Amino acid sequence: MRQVVYSVAMSLDGYIAGPAGEADWIAIDAEIDFEAMFARFDAILMGRKTYETTRTQQGGGATPGIVSYVFSRTLRQADCRDVSVSDNPSQTVSALKKRPGKDIWLFGGGALFGSLLELGLVDRVSVAIIPVLLGGGVPLLPGLQSRAKLRLVEHQIYAKTGTVSLEYAISQKRAGSKL
Amino acid sequence: MRQVVYSVAMSLDGYIAGPAGEADWIAIDAEIDFEAMFARFDAILMGRKTYETTRTQQGGGATPGIVSYVFSRTLRQADCRDVSVSDNPSQTVSALKKRPGKDIWLFGGGALFGSLLELGLVDRVSVAIIPVLLGGGVPLLPGLQSRAKLRLVEHQIYAKTGTVSLEYAISQKRAGSKL
Repeated sequence: MRQVVYSVAMSLDGYIAGPAGEADWIAIDAEIDFEAMFARFDAILMGRKTYETTRTQQGGGATPGIVSYVFSRTLRQADCRDVSVSDNPSQTVSALKKRPGKDIWLFGGGALFGSLLELGLVDRVSVAIIPVLLGGGVPLLPGLQSRAKLRLVEHQIYAKTGTVSLEYAISQKRAGSKL
Repeated sequence: MRQVVYSVAMSLDGYIAGPAGEADWIAIDAEIDFEAMFARFDAILMGRKTYETTRTQQGGGATPGIVSYVFSRTLRQADCRDVSVSDNPSQTVSALKKRPGKDIWLFGGGALFGSLLELGLVDRVSVAIIPVLLGGGVPLLPGLQSRAKLRLVEHQIYAKTGTVSLEYAISQKRAGSKL
């Protein structure tokens, strides 16, 4: 079955964006094969805030070959023609995982990751650790009812920028259970 | 000159202890050479809370060959005979760095790390990333006035537990300056 992968760049102290949403600390390492990274996915999941940020920054164009799903209780489908709007992450993601396809990129933010993690719908966490301490910002994961145990499945060191790429499989368990 | 090294175990989401100070998530990998790790240091720095936690857990015995310094405005030297108490981290750590000796282990917690980092007195951050998401707890670094740029200097993957050990040099700059 296709996997839901939370794939993000993170500061060493666990932030995926600065206090005002800044991404200027993310050093792009020329050695990273972004083409291969993107080719793994044919769907993107994001929360409303992340969608609004990317829409502003990227001008709202859809990515060819990739369908984006935005989760929100307030957005209306008619106002967001480039994406598929859903107010039910559990149902939408469960259905998506059952359909054939490539892996699904959980793009962010941390709140959506937290919700889907509690629902047992995230399979992997893939972080590119950027060598910086931000000291504050948007956390990788804001609050969780219980711990999630991980298993390291891949690692890659990019010497030029010192970026450390780690991919973990999430040990699936019922929400609320202890390790 | 001897270096001040903030050396800690951290969850992937950036916590060095659980919400109630738990350390039970730290999987000890038999491959890690703790003896070599400890042999690097002859002094330990810690904040008051960390001291009180270790004193309770370890019964207050001093570590042979290692001098511990505890920073606190409230503790009295007479009550803490196993350690050296100081209410002036800046002065004590600056003086210690100028004296010959091995590296200095900044043991914790995050608040002391933050203060010493702002003062430009921390040289390295060494984290053992444990494969777990805690979702809350004591952060690696609780708040910072400005970013701190890092340079990856060492890495080690421990296959058995999936622990990833990363050591970074801190780019020294004046407090308050931007990257």
